[in-house]
Amino acid sequence: MKATFGHTEGSGVDVKVLAFDIFGTTVDWYTGVADQVARLAAARGIELDGGEFAGAWRERYIPSMDLVRRGDLPWTILDELHRRSLDELLVERGIGAAFAEADRAELVRAWHRLPAWPDAVEGIARLRTRYTVAAVSNGGFALLTNLVKAARLPFDCIISAELARHYKPDPEVYLTVAGLLDVQPHEVLMVAAHIWDLTGARNAGLRTAFVERPREKGPHGKADRAADAHADLSVGDLTELAAALGC
Amino acid sequence: MKATFGHTEGSGVDVKVLAFDIFGTTVDWYTGVADQVARLAAARGIELDGGEFAGAWRERYIPSMDLVRRGDLPWTILDELHRRSLDELLVERGIGAAFAEADRAELVRAWHRLPAWPDAVEGIARLRTRYTVAAVSNGGFALLTNLVKAARLPFDCIISAELARHYKPDPEVYLTVAGLLDVQPHEVLMVAAHIWDLTGARNAGLRTAFVERPREKGPHGKADRAADAHADLSVGDLTELAAALGC
Repeated sequence: MKATFGHTEGSGVDVKVLAFDIFGTTVDWYTGVADQVARLAAARGIELDGGEFAGAWRERYIPSMDLVRRGDLPWTILDELHRRSLDELLVERGIGAAFAEADRAELVRAWHRLPAWPDAVEGIARLRTRYTVAAVSNGGFALLTNLVKAARLPFDCIISAELARHYKPDPEVYLTVAGLLDVQPHEVLMVAAHIWDLTGARNAGLRTAFVERPREKGPHGKADRAADAHADLSVGDLTELAAALGC
Repeated sequence: MKATFGHTEGSGVDVKVLAFDIFGTTVDWYTGVADQVARLAAARGIELDGGEFAGAWRERYIPSMDLVRRGDLPWTILDELHRRSLDELLVERGIGAAFAEADRAELVRAWHRLPAWPDAVEGIARLRTRYTVAAVSNGGFALLTNLVKAARLPFDCIISAELARHYKPDPEVYLTVAGLLDVQPHEVLMVAAHIWDLTGARNAGLRTAFVERPREKGPHGKADRAADAHADLSVGDLTELAAALGC
């Protein structure tokens, strides 16, 4: 039996597609970026807290996409936004001179190889037996392909925001998922650890599942919590989601 | 060591991405469609040679895409082109009345579930260890996602012609592959059983590998042969391709 979700009594509708956010939801960007930053900084003889730097870099993620969403920048893939943010951050910290062009390119590529959360591969593999499972992220198509391959996440397909030339939470991204997979928006369940993403999905007519990732932003960061999510479903990890959906 | 391909002496360039054609190259559309047509025709009490019908349907594939390529039709996904061709064919055969709307929809969906050639899963799995492997087909994104999932083909990503809103052999499709995967056209090896596809790929700057599938169009159909292909590489199946590329 497929799980049904009723926003209103008796209106249970079968979900056919599970759309998974990537950064923070299926992979641990904080640990992955922190480790790679710390390693390169050490090699360059710079004292740097990799975790703090990763957090500060990620803080610029939403503002940088907002430049595109508002039309202040033309369509720009995430690698380039990451690079802009990195350049600014290195100047602010007064350590720009220590990181040459090749170093900066390598740091931008750190976002292409991040560890999966321990439950992600098993959870997605179980969910895949019953649903179409798609990676749906603001990462570029190449970034996502590299990341999903390296982390061995068993997705059926990759749908980058790049395909819509809009960033989440713009409705175009969520509607592109439904359009490309030839289903109705309410037949897609967006799975994410971020309330802003689920709010965007809900506004576009998708169903929503919140995954609580309390360590998403590292030991000192403030991650979104289940109590605030108001999603159709709320789980602690992706194996719990598989169990909740009968997989 | 990565395989290199030199069009001119000493210009060997690493290939990073293998782009696989789907219908005929990785899956056996003839057998798959013939079986499903024969089954439905029998259920409707119609005498029909499933293989002959599948072949006649497929004969309309390139002409139907040419309508879009020439601009006589706006962008139209393959499911809809398949449906137009099917409707015409049923009228021509004088059996239109036997196949209701739901039957026709089911026949169009036959192209979403086709058997992989026996060597495809192993060959792609081996090639995946060293290259990014992408499904690159004129099938729509939903069709390809369904087909790849059902046939358990271990692709890293799916790049439908729908993403370019152009059909192969238009260069836009091949260049979309390179663009989305952030590589140069000559770093992509197009793998196909059709000379027209490889010619399009070559014209867009890609490398080419011909896979000979003599039974692609069934026992009486005339498949493309290696002697006519003039590709950078020519193999008998995908495990042979894996061996040729050191995987």
